[in-house]
Amino acid sequence: MVENKKVVVVGIPGVGKTTVINRIAEIIKERQKTIKVTNFGTIMFEVAKENGLENRDELRKLPISEQKRLQKDAADKLSKFEDDVIIIDTHAFIRTPEGFNPGLPYYVLQIIEPTHFIIVTAKTEEIYNRRMKDETRNRDKAAITTIKKELDIQSAMMSACSILSGSPLSQIQNNEGKLEEAATKIIKAIGL
Amino acid sequence: MVENKKVVVVGIPGVGKTTVINRIAEIIKERQKTIKVTNFGTIMFEVAKENGLENRDELRKLPISEQKRLQKDAADKLSKFEDDVIIIDTHAFIRTPEGFNPGLPYYVLQIIEPTHFIIVTAKTEEIYNRRMKDETRNRDKAAITTIKKELDIQSAMMSACSILSGSPLSQIQNNEGKLEEAATKIIKAIGL
Amino acid sequence: MVENKKVVVVGIPGVGKTTVINRIAEIIKERQKTIKVTNFGTIMFEVAKENGLENRDELRKLPISEQKRLQKDAADKLSKFEDDVIIIDTHAFIRTPEGFNPGLPYYVLQIIEPTHFIIVTAKTEEIYNRRMKDETRNRDKAAITTIKKELDIQSAMMSACSILSGSPLSQIQNNEGKLEEAATKIIKAIGL
Repeated sequence: MVENKKVVVVGIPGVGKTTVINRIAEIIKERQKTIKVTNFGTIMFEVAKENGLENRDELRKLPISEQKRLQKDAADKLSKFEDDVIIIDTHAFIRTPEGFNPGLPYYVLQIIEPTHFIIVTAKTEEIYNRRMKDETRNRDKAAITTIKKELDIQSAMMSACSILSGSPLSQIQNNEGKLEEAATKIIKAIGL
Repeated sequence: MVENKKVVVVGIPGVGKTTVINRIAEIIKERQKTIKVTNFGTIMFEVAKENGLENRDELRKLPISEQKRLQKDAADKLSKFEDDVIIIDTHAFIRTPEGFNPGLPYYVLQIIEPTHFIIVTAKTEEIYNRRMKDETRNRDKAAITTIKKELDIQSAMMSACSILSGSPLSQIQNNEGKLEEAATKIIKAIGL
Repeated sequence: MVENKKVVVVGIPGVGKTTVINRIAEIIKERQKTIKVTNFGTIMFEVAKENGLENRDELRKLPISEQKRLQKDAADKLSKFEDDVIIIDTHAFIRTPEGFNPGLPYYVLQIIEPTHFIIVTAKTEEIYNRRMKDETRNRDKAAITTIKKELDIQSAMMSACSILSGSPLSQIQNNEGKLEEAATKIIKAIGL
């Protein structure tokens, strides 16, 4: 039995996660491996649609117990893919009015059984600039504090995920102009 | 079946947790919801008394296995309450000579199944001042370091709780003179 | 049934963990208690040798599923020791090309059932100096950042371990010239 790689990739808004994932996918394809890039949120919504839902907003309004069932169904679907590398594009948490809502609760980890956890990150000020690019230049101290808090919680939650799954956790810097370096490090981190 | 809210509220000494909880309780009652405010330590001691113990000190001297059984019994008792909102006033950890003793170990989380985790916090210096208010004005650097360490461990432990339960984690600032703001944010965080 | 103490001791390279463990072992023996100091990595390699492996490098090259089986077998072996105090010398994580590989995944914790978690730590600059002692005196900012990151991840992972096991977590400073103080604190933290 070949063990395929199930790589969870997380990152807070502004780190450039999608760009990095796209670049990794290219590199892996060049190496003649099959790869599937999946977005956990999208799969969850697909499952919800099969259950009669029409838009993502309705999803958030379901009772928690129903949301959890859909989350598990999405995880089930995801765990059936058989490509050499399965990238699971998701979040350590989603910011909601209720707080940091974990994207990878234990009952999801038990179904997916990720083999690698990757945190894509960047310098605090770069994250700030990417988030604020259309706004005034006035430095917002509160926004910087928020980013630092998000990075802390992300780090703690992913550490818990790593302990629960027994799979390694890698943190990769995606700094301005260093996309290739970031992609290469992730390829190495997933043992390719 | 209506899903009641089981809200774990933690905070290190000096953040003003009790004041915030009392204010939330008032607001929830005004909204015609039933609420029960429970203190996990008190319930554990009640259970211990039913088992023949006479004071809290004896509790700490029991063998760990016995303490864990009482902790589970307390969690069982707590999980039976049927109010719309159940506030579980507890700690991420209790400082003991043995270190940070977790207040919400996994076997307790599995019984209680909290729906929300709230960390009440405040600025480091405000926590310091509230803790030291009767003491000399000399700034104690070691005490500040201790507070920061406690906030870090609390954050990490609560992140693990959130992953294990799949329930959101919210961190609320209870800064000097901002009680109403803190209470309002918690009410929002628990979806009321 | 006497409950023996199963004490997990972790620390990143450069904190002087081995020296501290040796000193604790001496003190415990002076107190007429039986103690076994075990190194998790060594036991894992012993188990691997019984399974036909010849060197540690081969261990790392096994499929992950095989490595996990050996890890569990090592945990099984460890959980059978009956001394009053069993010191489990290990790491919160091992740095590998794949990232921070957890030394105490949940499936290992479930077998060992540690009663105490001890983090041996030291000031960042002391760790730096101990790591760099044979090298140039030029301060390497990146190395300092790496140490801080390692301390953070260690703290988060051990917090998760504490929540999962329900056992206390203690962080002990082993600063330059303060070995005796560190050892005494650990003895106290494990309730001796």
